[in-house]
Amino acid sequence: MAIQAYAAMRAGAPLEPFEYDPGPLSPEHVEIRVEHCGLCHSDLSMIDSQWGGTSYPLVPGHEVVGVVETAGPQVKNVKVGDRVGLGWFSSSCTGCVRCLSGDHNWCRTVEQTIVGRHGGFADRVRAHWVWATPLPAALDASSAGPLFCGGSTVFNPLVQYAIKPTDRVAVVGIGGLGHLALKFMRAWGCEVTAFTSSESKQAEALSLGAHRAVPTGDRDFLLRSPRSFDLILVTVNVALEWPLFLQAVAPRGRLHFVGAVMDPISTGAFGLISGQKTMSGSGLGSPATTAKMLDFCARHAIAPQIESFPMRRINDAIEHLRSGKARYRVVLRNE
Amino acid sequence: MAIQAYAAMRAGAPLEPFEYDPGPLSPEHVEIRVEHCGLCHSDLSMIDSQWGGTSYPLVPGHEVVGVVETAGPQVKNVKVGDRVGLGWFSSSCTGCVRCLSGDHNWCRTVEQTIVGRHGGFADRVRAHWVWATPLPAALDASSAGPLFCGGSTVFNPLVQYAIKPTDRVAVVGIGGLGHLALKFMRAWGCEVTAFTSSESKQAEALSLGAHRAVPTGDRDFLLRSPRSFDLILVTVNVALEWPLFLQAVAPRGRLHFVGAVMDPISTGAFGLISGQKTMSGSGLGSPATTAKMLDFCARHAIAPQIESFPMRRINDAIEHLRSGKARYRVVLRNE
Repeated sequence: MAIQAYAAMRAGAPLEPFEYDPGPLSPEHVEIRVEHCGLCHSDLSMIDSQWGGTSYPLVPGHEVVGVVETAGPQVKNVKVGDRVGLGWFSSSCTGCVRCLSGDHNWCRTVEQTIVGRHGGFADRVRAHWVWATPLPAALDASSAGPLFCGGSTVFNPLVQYAIKPTDRVAVVGIGGLGHLALKFMRAWGCEVTAFTSSESKQAEALSLGAHRAVPTGDRDFLLRSPRSFDLILVTVNVALEWPLFLQAVAPRGRLHFVGAVMDPISTGAFGLISGQKTMSGSGLGSPATTAKMLDFCARHAIAPQIESFPMRRINDAIEHLRSGKARYRVVLRNE
Repeated sequence: MAIQAYAAMRAGAPLEPFEYDPGPLSPEHVEIRVEHCGLCHSDLSMIDSQWGGTSYPLVPGHEVVGVVETAGPQVKNVKVGDRVGLGWFSSSCTGCVRCLSGDHNWCRTVEQTIVGRHGGFADRVRAHWVWATPLPAALDASSAGPLFCGGSTVFNPLVQYAIKPTDRVAVVGIGGLGHLALKFMRAWGCEVTAFTSSESKQAEALSLGAHRAVPTGDRDFLLRSPRSFDLILVTVNVALEWPLFLQAVAPRGRLHFVGAVMDPISTGAFGLISGQKTMSGSGLGSPATTAKMLDFCARHAIAPQIESFPMRRINDAIEHLRSGKARYRVVLRNE
């Protein structure tokens, strides 16, 4: 049965109704009836072909929550009727050494939900079972979508680097990713600092979990805070004065990038050597880390703070996100 | 009793005989009769005031092996007659949270052996007991000196980052530091690659422990080796094409700097995010890590490869090191 979707027909174009035939379902894949789908900055980057190489028509959408409607005969872990989430990745081989290590996100044949295939702004979407993660019943389906991309992106470093509740951590940029990072880190037990360039978000950052909020451009604060933070998580994609942030990193600490900063990141060797500091980056977590995140969200009542639009108003939603007014994540709903 | 030393009286000057009165011995300090003292590039940097702020007269030398001749009444762990080593650091408070954590090298009042005090090119030198590390009897006193600075610098990352025998590792720059890194890594059980810009060192690198040696400028090798190395340890202090080396780092791997690269180190965020990679740096290890290194050296018969000069020929030794001909570490001996 044809899938009813919304697609960009060329770079930067508004989305328009688009129908496509998904062909026969692979034996290890599921077809998900989309209930909700978050709108992420990466969707805009793909619509605009900002990273190059977008092929059109493009059906964006990679923060899906929905119900498994059909399951191939070799599907494991989920079954028809289960509510699942689907994020940036949609297929891995499950057989290579990376998959066998639990790093399905690094599988050499990993498929990305909106790269060379069609995503979640549609009535249905397909994925390999390994990336269709069951949604715990305690989580609200209408707001959970952004966990599967934005959430996984900021939760992953906490797991990968074994961040401890005794750590002092900071988030740079309080948007779709950053607001979730604040919630995670507060529940994680850490001392949490928010850096935001928006004055209006400073008070909100405190309500989201930060113990204090600091203007991103406050050089004096950074200069007064040498060797203070075990982790500074950068969610923005603009260039900042990184050596100054690195100075504020504690011994054995880390300045970590999850935002697609396009300008080169630069430091002197002594800025790393003195205090054994690290600059690093990471993308989305594995299926196991995603499941761990959902369990943590259920236990700590963590949900993305969203604004909901009906799917037919997708272009309004995109404009809202582009305007920088989203607080903090936009989710489309099928009606 | 006055100490007989060799000092630079001004920036870049040859060393000349110099006598100074060390004053009363602090209760927690030892006085060491210097038998051997390695010559390190950092000595040259300090003689030349390359990092700024050298005060003259300067007695360099911070890779000491000698015998405890006098011990203050509150000295622990070592006693008169013990053979010990002394490296870049010579005193820590032992009471602050960093010392209590075992990171005496990060003590806020840490003293550096040749910064604002006099070092090991002398008949005697003093240090707090915590930095006078007993030399295992199995180690040769005449060659062990370089372990206490160069050795500790390249051994430390193996401990800090829990490098595994199953890891694939590489060393960039096969000199005083790099040749020890090859020996350590081979004994550690790793697959070891040496990058060297010197053709003559390629064969030597294999004899030092490398499984293969590659010219540092071989871009094709790097381009053919994406995601290959769990650790690339950079011991050089010149600018190289770091994004290319970062591409050769394996997922969750690390491009690590111990050399004082003066030019900025630059990368794109995607170079870090894709494969969750890290750029980091570190300095010398703690007293406990130093002791661990010495034990490892004794068990694996690891010793620096040195050229020995009598102390009175210190200026010849300095010229030899400056000429780039040292293979691989120069050690001065008191006769």
